[in-house]
Amino acid sequence: MSPFIHVNCAMSADGKIAGPDRKQMRISSEEDMVRVRDLRKEYDSILVGVGTVISDNPHLTVKGLSYDDNPVRIVIDPHGRTPDDALVLDERAPTVMVTSSSCDREWDAEEIVRAGDPLDLNIMLEALEDMGIDSILVEGGGETIAGFFRAGLVNKYTVFVGSCVIGGRTSPTPADGDLAILKKMTLESNEILGSGVLLTFTL
Amino acid sequence: MSPFIHVNCAMSADGKIAGPDRKQMRISSEEDMVRVRDLRKEYDSILVGVGTVISDNPHLTVKGLSYDDNPVRIVIDPHGRTPDDALVLDERAPTVMVTSSSCDREWDAEEIVRAGDPLDLNIMLEALEDMGIDSILVEGGGETIAGFFRAGLVNKYTVFVGSCVIGGRTSPTPADGDLAILKKMTLESNEILGSGVLLTFTL
Repeated sequence: MSPFIHVNCAMSADGKIAGPDRKQMRISSEEDMVRVRDLRKEYDSILVGVGTVISDNPHLTVKGLSYDDNPVRIVIDPHGRTPDDALVLDERAPTVMVTSSSCDREWDAEEIVRAGDPLDLNIMLEALEDMGIDSILVEGGGETIAGFFRAGLVNKYTVFVGSCVIGGRTSPTPADGDLAILKKMTLESNEILGSGVLLTFTL
Repeated sequence: MSPFIHVNCAMSADGKIAGPDRKQMRISSEEDMVRVRDLRKEYDSILVGVGTVISDNPHLTVKGLSYDDNPVRIVIDPHGRTPDDALVLDERAPTVMVTSSSCDREWDAEEIVRAGDPLDLNIMLEALEDMGIDSILVEGGGETIAGFFRAGLVNKYTVFVGSCVIGGRTSPTPADGDLAILKKMTLESNEILGSGVLLTFTL
């Protein structure tokens, strides 16, 4: 059994997860931020791509949880670009760094997974499963999410649609990447959360 | 009183209105297509940018309505790129072509408006108002919609969010353009329409 994969993100009403040049913008409502905090507690791990680490420098932890209780943090970083002082490498939770096999970059992380050349998500998932990780919450960015959709690995997709328009031809969206994907999903629910709407889809 | 401006579009669950290179994809549900047909009847005019004319070649008419009963079709085409055989220039409805003042391209259209250099939406709106056009349904594409948001001219925004993921870094979104806009809106309603959800915002 491959780990259960849930993609969660927040986009503006015109489909952006950030501004041009990945500039972070406040899209989620307070209610959505509470939902995401609770959602993180339900998953064995939280995953982002290195682009998100470099642009946002997130902690990827749940406030108040101990090192052992926090979900494992996973960073997909094919070429080893994550800086040593990235917050995702701090002492608040275990971290797994995933690189391509030809990358020999080391970090002071719990685990480093070399996952093929080019990096193969299925090789990564096998390694994560061997570590006892049964569920992954994928939080971004658009290139990483597109990779999971393209590989047919997404089980659930939740997107909070905020009440703002961001614009910009180069602003990242929930699924970017080189090519179109065109995955059909099933709408499970829509729910107002403060100033926006949470949409839940299954695949 | 400037005309009432309503932007309406359909995007995928990852914020795309078409595939990479503007390739058209089926995003709307049957129920949403019925809604758009009825919506068009309520407006004095339907507006698109020249990019949409070139990539999609739409009629922009309501099936079954006469020439006089159809909304006026408006094309924003600063440099006069709309081909003479574009369907938007056919005999099924009146058409207004809007260019920059330095463009001298002519078409066999009802009216041609020269709207400043560079093209100024406010000059265009004054001319349309003088023609008796009190309401405009803006249907795309992303660059045109971004222009209306940036100029602060949008009164209402409806977006159907479909149950598919399209992907692609270069796929157009509801609002593109060179810069971020960041307009805050108010969510008025969310409504399931077949396989997707219709979100209605006011500004």
